[in-house]
Order: sequence, then C-alpha cells, then structure tokens
Amino acid sequence: MSERLVVIGGDAAGMSAATQARRLRPDVEIVAIERGRWTSYSACGIPYLVGGDVSSLDQLVARSPQEFRDRHRIDVRTEHEVVGVDLAARSAEVHDRVHGRSYTLGFDQLHLATGAIPRRPEIAGIDLPHVHGVQDLEDASRLLAEVRAGTVRRVAVLGGGYIGLELAEAFVKRGVPVTVVERGPQLLGQIDPDMGALVSDACRRHGITVLCREEVVGIEEGAVTTDQRSVPADLVVLGFGVEPNSRLATEAGLALGPRGSIAVDRTQRTSAEGVWAAGDCCQSEMIVTGAAVHVALGTVANKQGRVAGINIGGGYATFPGVVGTAVTKLCSLEVGRTGVNEAEAREAGFGYVVGRIETTTRAGYYPGAGPITVKLLAERGHGRVLGAQIVGQEGAAKRVDVLATAITARMTVEDLLGLDLSYAPPFSSVWDPVQVAARRALGLLEGRG
Amino acid sequence: MSERLVVIGGDAAGMSAATQARRLRPDVEIVAIERGRWTSYSACGIPYLVGGDVSSLDQLVARSPQEFRDRHRIDVRTEHEVVGVDLAARSAEVHDRVHGRSYTLGFDQLHLATGAIPRRPEIAGIDLPHVHGVQDLEDASRLLAEVRAGTVRRVAVLGGGYIGLELAEAFVKRGVPVTVVERGPQLLGQIDPDMGALVSDACRRHGITVLCREEVVGIEEGAVTTDQRSVPADLVVLGFGVEPNSRLATEAGLALGPRGSIAVDRTQRTSAEGVWAAGDCCQSEMIVTGAAVHVALGTVANKQGRVAGINIGGGYATFPGVVGTAVTKLCSLEVGRTGVNEAEAREAGFGYVVGRIETTTRAGYYPGAGPITVKLLAERGHGRVLGAQIVGQEGAAKRVDVLATAITARMTVEDLLGLDLSYAPPFSSVWDPVQVAARRALGLLEGRG
Repeated sequence: MSERLVVIGGDAAGMSAATQARRLRPDVEIVAIERGRWTSYSACGIPYLVGGDVSSLDQLVARSPQEFRDRHRIDVRTEHEVVGVDLAARSAEVHDRVHGRSYTLGFDQLHLATGAIPRRPEIAGIDLPHVHGVQDLEDASRLLAEVRAGTVRRVAVLGGGYIGLELAEAFVKRGVPVTVVERGPQLLGQIDPDMGALVSDACRRHGITVLCREEVVGIEEGAVTTDQRSVPADLVVLGFGVEPNSRLATEAGLALGPRGSIAVDRTQRTSAEGVWAAGDCCQSEMIVTGAAVHVALGTVANKQGRVAGINIGGGYATFPGVVGTAVTKLCSLEVGRTGVNEAEAREAGFGYVVGRIETTTRAGYYPGAGPITVKLLAERGHGRVLGAQIVGQEGAAKRVDVLATAITARMTVEDLLGLDLSYAPPFSSVWDPVQVAARRALGLLEGRG
Repeated sequence: MSERLVVIGGDAAGMSAATQARRLRPDVEIVAIERGRWTSYSACGIPYLVGGDVSSLDQLVARSPQEFRDRHRIDVRTEHEVVGVDLAARSAEVHDRVHGRSYTLGFDQLHLATGAIPRRPEIAGIDLPHVHGVQDLEDASRLLAEVRAGTVRRVAVLGGGYIGLELAEAFVKRGVPVTVVERGPQLLGQIDPDMGALVSDACRRHGITVLCREEVVGIEEGAVTTDQRSVPADLVVLGFGVEPNSRLATEAGLALGPRGSIAVDRTQRTSAEGVWAAGDCCQSEMIVTGAAVHVALGTVANKQGRVAGINIGGGYATFPGVVGTAVTKLCSLEVGRTGVNEAEAREAGFGYVVGRIETTTRAGYYPGAGPITVKLLAERGHGRVLGAQIVGQEGAAKRVDVLATAITARMTVEDLLGLDLSYAPPFSSVWDPVQVAARRALGLLEGRG
C-alpha cells in the first residue's frame, strides 16, 4: 500500500503543504480533511464581502476542492472533521458531518493546519447566536445572510483590532451604525497609542462610535453592556483576536508553544516524528527578539505551509520566522507595522530612540499628496532598526515592506538612510518618508534633538 | 580670517552639503554660487508643471536663496557663475551675470555640485532655439512660456527615456500631439525590451506617436528628420539623457570617472585635498557589480550632498553606492527598476535566470486590482537577486524598493520568499508579486520550468 499523508485543514497552511508534497512525491496518497465547505479561501476578504466591495462569497475562494482533486490528485473531504488523533496507532478519527458517520483514517505522515478560533473571553452571553466571529467562510456566509436580510440595525464590535475595525467600516458602508468597544487607550493595540490615536480619529470622522478604555461585561439580545454604559446592538462581532486551534495537538500530546500554539522547529516539524504543523495553529519565531510567538496571518500560513510540504515531500526548506509585519486600510487611512512596537521593545529589554516624522506620501507639490506619519524605533548604540509604524493616506502603508526587509537584514538607521529607494514626484519625496524617519532617529542617536 | 567653503551649484547636491557643513561648523564662511535664479528645486517636477498638475514654478522650489541666508547663514549668490577654478591658488573666478562683472573668490574647501547637462549628439540643428533640454528651472520656465503662449502645435521628443516620456505625456495632457523618436527597440532603454514593450504600448494607447528603431538625423524649424521620415514639430525636447557637467573639474585637473564624471571616494572627496563633489556631476559605485557608474538622480544627489557636507564639516559619513533604482509613472502605467537589467547582467558577466510573472496589484477580487508584471534576475547557483523590473497599474512600482533593499543586503530569491511582507486585500495578494516572481526564479534555479 502506498504511503499516506493526512492533512487536517483545507485552507492556506494545509493546501499549500498538500500541493508541495504532491509536487515532490507523485506516489503518496494525500487526504485533506476540511470541516467546512470551502478550501483555500481568503478570510481576510470577509470584510469586503460584508461591505459589498466583493459581490459573492465564491470570489474569496482561490481554489475549490474539485480543483485540488483534478489538478493535484488530493483527496479533499469537505464537511469532514477530525475529532481525534492517535499518534501511536498512526490514525485519525474522522467524522463525516453530512452523513453523520465516523471512520478511522490511517496515516504515515500527518500535517496539522487547524487554524485559529476567535478568542471568547468569559463574558455572559458571548455564545448567543447574534455574536459572530470572523474567521472562516461559514462566518462570512452567516454575516452576509444577516446583511442581506436587512434586519441589522446596530452593530457592536468588541475589540479594536484589524478585523474588527475592517468589519466596522464594512457595516458603516452598508448604512448600519457601528460602535467599537476597546479596553485599551486607543484602537489597534498592535501599534503604539500615539499612532493608534490617528486611527481612532479617522474612525470617528468616518462615523464609527469609538469607545476606548471601556470593558465589555455582558452581552444580551439587543445590547452589549460595558463597565460604563449599555450599547444597543442586534449584531455583535468578536474582535478580541484569535487563539490557536490546537485541541487535537494538545490531546495527542504534542509539545506546545506560546498561547497554546503547536511547537514546531524551523522545518515545521512538531515534537513527534512525521507530524507537521503550519499556519494559525502553530508558533513562529519573531526574528527581532528571537522569541517564540503566535502570529495568525495568511502570509505566514502560506509560507509555513509551503515549507512543511517541501519537507513532508522529502525536500528541504526552512521557515525563517516573522518580523511582525501587518497592514490594513481603514476609513481612508492606511496603517502598517513591522518589527516591535514600544511596548514590545521594552518587554524585550531593548533600549531605543524613536524617530517620528510627519511628511507627505508624494512630492508635496504633486496632486493627491497626503499626510503620512512614520515612527521608527532604533536600538541605542549602533542604531539597528527594531520596528516601524506607518499611518497615512493612499500610498503610505506598503512602505512598511522596505522596513520589514531592512529589519530582516539587521540594517541600522544609517544603512536605511543609504538605501537607493525609488523616487519620482507621484510616489514620494526625494528622501522617502522612511528615510526621513531614519534621519530623525539618527539625529537622536547622535545626541541631536 | 575665518575658513571659507565655496559651493558651486545651488541645487540638492550643493545645498545639502552646505547645510550639513553649517550644522557641524558654525564658524565657517559658506558661499554658494548658483548660475540660475533658483536653489534647491525639483527638476523631476518639471513635467508636472508643463502638464498643468502643478500650477506654478515656485511650487517646485523646496528652499529659496533667502531661506538659506536666513536659516543657515549661507551666502547664496544666484545668477553668478564660476568660470574657472585655480586649485593651486585656492580660488575661483566668478562671473556676476546680472551686473556683468567678475571677481576672484578664495576658498579653503571647495564643493563641486555642478550637475548634469542634456546630452546633445552631433545632429544638425540641435542648437536651434526651439530645441529644449529638461534639466533646470530655466528650462522649465522656457517650456512653460511656450505652453502658455499656446503656439505649440506639435512636439517631438528625441529619446525615449524617463524625462522625455514624462514630458511627452505632459504635452498630450495639454492637447498637443507628441511624437517620440527612439533608436532602441522599445521605449525606456533602462529596462529590458520585453518590459519596455509594455510601456510603448501604453504610450501608444495614450495617443503618443511612438517611433522605435529610428534615428534622428537632423532638426530644422518645424520638423525633425529621422532616417525614415520627417516628423513635424515646432517644439523639440531633448531626451537623450544627460552627461556630467564636469568642465570646471576637468580644467582644474581633477581625476575623472566614467563618462567624464568627477571621480570621488566614498566620502565624496575628489582627487584633490579639500575638494569635494556630489550629485549629477560625479560618479557613484554600483553595488551589484562593484563598477563605477554615472547616475544623475535627485535621490543620489541629496545623499551624496549630505555625505560630502558631513565630511567637509569634519564629521564622518560615507556614501554606500547605488543599486540602480528608478521609478516613473507614465500614461497610467507605473514603471520601476533596480539592480541590473539583462544587458547589464550579461556585460558584468553574471549568469542568471529570469523569473517573470504577471499577477494583480491587489487581491484579485478587490476593486481596482490591476495587472502587474514583475521580472526578477537571480544569479545562477546560490540565487542572489541581481535586479528587478516592475511594470503595472497603480500600486505596482514602489514595490521595487523592497527589491532594492534586498539587493543591497545581498539576499537570495529564497531570502526574498521568506520575507515577512505586508498583506491585506487592498494592497496585495497573499504572496506579494515580488515573492511570486521569486518563486518562479527559484523554480528555475532548481531546474523546474
């Protein structure tokens, strides 16, 4: 009998691995088990579906189960769920959700790509049916049905992170009033409060009710109760972030990393021979600090999945880690971050200076030039770039990629200043804004104000 | 008597140096001699002035002579021209163009920032008054006067480089028909012909008459003659590129580099003690090949000027060189390049593979996603990134900065693939287009198709 690879999870981390393994090992039987109805979809696209920028849910699907069957000979089983894994017996217990029956599936290699689930703090009412996560296309399908039914009159978003805010904007676009409740001092806790304040202001100008430093204490039909008031809401969105869906791994006795994520080495191998993991369910290394972290992003899932698949297939590849890059577009503002923010820098024990500047996205005289704020953290002493945050108008945020690359290469602010970055008036000032920030940081490092 | 620094040239390379020197040496007398009427202006903005995107010439001036006098105590003398330098006597012969008189100005240190001048091949009629360069604000002023007079009926642009094409678009915007004559197989010889073809197509769709593989043999009042036809034109734009304006340096006996540019070391010092140079008049090092090159770009001028000024002031800074980055926006297309193109790679003896891909600027389902083509050159063997070219819709070209940074850090395509670049549907596909190109190149390096 041929060797069998079982992949649990049919999104990016699972299917990238499956296709890479297939490429390297035409002989192996590959079975992919997916709880939902869809494979390889863009969960990041859900807000644009809800807001109406994207017209149908199918557009978010990059590749269907049938395409994987036809093009890659991968036996994709949707609406099937793995309910237990027996590592000693090398088998998984699978439940067929459509036919309501279960069966045992043996494997030689196992790849865990079980994703993440919305964090649900212990708040009364959090499991009520009008409380929605934004994690997979099942969630998308439910949210879209609510929007199309036209019965949603007021929305509350609990937590002011990326996905929650993107969804807040989507509902506003549909004409539905939205309140965001955030316990932190500003929205978007992934960036420093001084930069988050720019986001809070933009959201308010956009018509979103923003409540910061406010704690949700209960949810009931028609309202959310905070420690300060009652917020009317007939639909509630969970935006508290996510946690790794590592129940199967935990029960199977695999080693765990931060926040209960599955521990993996640089080849995406778990603590058990022949068992791999990738994506939102597992850990990454944060290159700047060297610490193990849990990052649930599609970029990471795709990269880790590719690496796992190559190694599963007998090749060799490693995942180099993350530098904490993220980007979003919110209420006409673009927001990007990479590396460590101030809180993370302090926690890691870094001494740093902050180069923070305001300039324009294009040459000041060029039509459409808008404000951009760049904040750069540079390590005291040699001036290594530790992190950066960018908030600004159109054209601002993708600049964070230059900084992500510079951080990965362990460049200093002086290196950054010397980079041959592109310039033409429609794109930039002659010193790119990231270099203007580097100049400010360099001045501080040299003791100038 | 206090020490005196004389700066020749009042644009970026001159005034950056002057202000840095002032910062470090409050005691030195600084005199800046500028032939024209303006200081620190954006020559790159001229096409947008001609096209009407920018409403007045003053908007292109970053800092006026008076600001330099008031804020930096720099004695700026506009409409003065240095006509000769005597290094042995440590003096410059200055001609006051307004009052028509000359005087000798002694110096302790001399900084040459004399810029570049449009290349004028030996073509009959090239010095006729209706033939215009696009190099400084005097040119801008003349072009603007022509446009505003409304007497320009047909324009010919000789040479299909950045500035020529930008100006061609500007005239089209003013409703004036334009013909571009280019001797090469495609427009924009700075990129490979297969990528240049995308630009030629876009310019033609935009209404520009594009004549490639055609040589200009003569210019007369009302027409340009090529080796194939007569092109009616009552205004002619020189777009053959520029050459360093190094006459003073040559006559003073300074060592020269490629194309007659002034030779400098990494501190911007010329072959003579206490004599410095920066910007379009001097050489740079091309990091990818290690060769000395002549690059006339505002970004380089600003950086070299800053470095020169710090060293003149007794500090220490070095210019790390260039990687050949450039960007432009033409007829709704964005074009970026960095590193070496195919011809340059071959000339430098590099063996390489080409990863060329077409994808979308944003997530495919996101509104406004447009086509983007990325071409990546990776060295055979370890896969070091040697160069890249990007042509695409809005959001495409600034991505070249990631590649410029990666090339500077001597990253391989595998490193590029591992980079934690930002993703959200309004900005990118989950694998950024530059990483899609890296995957293609990696496949070729590994012998896959």
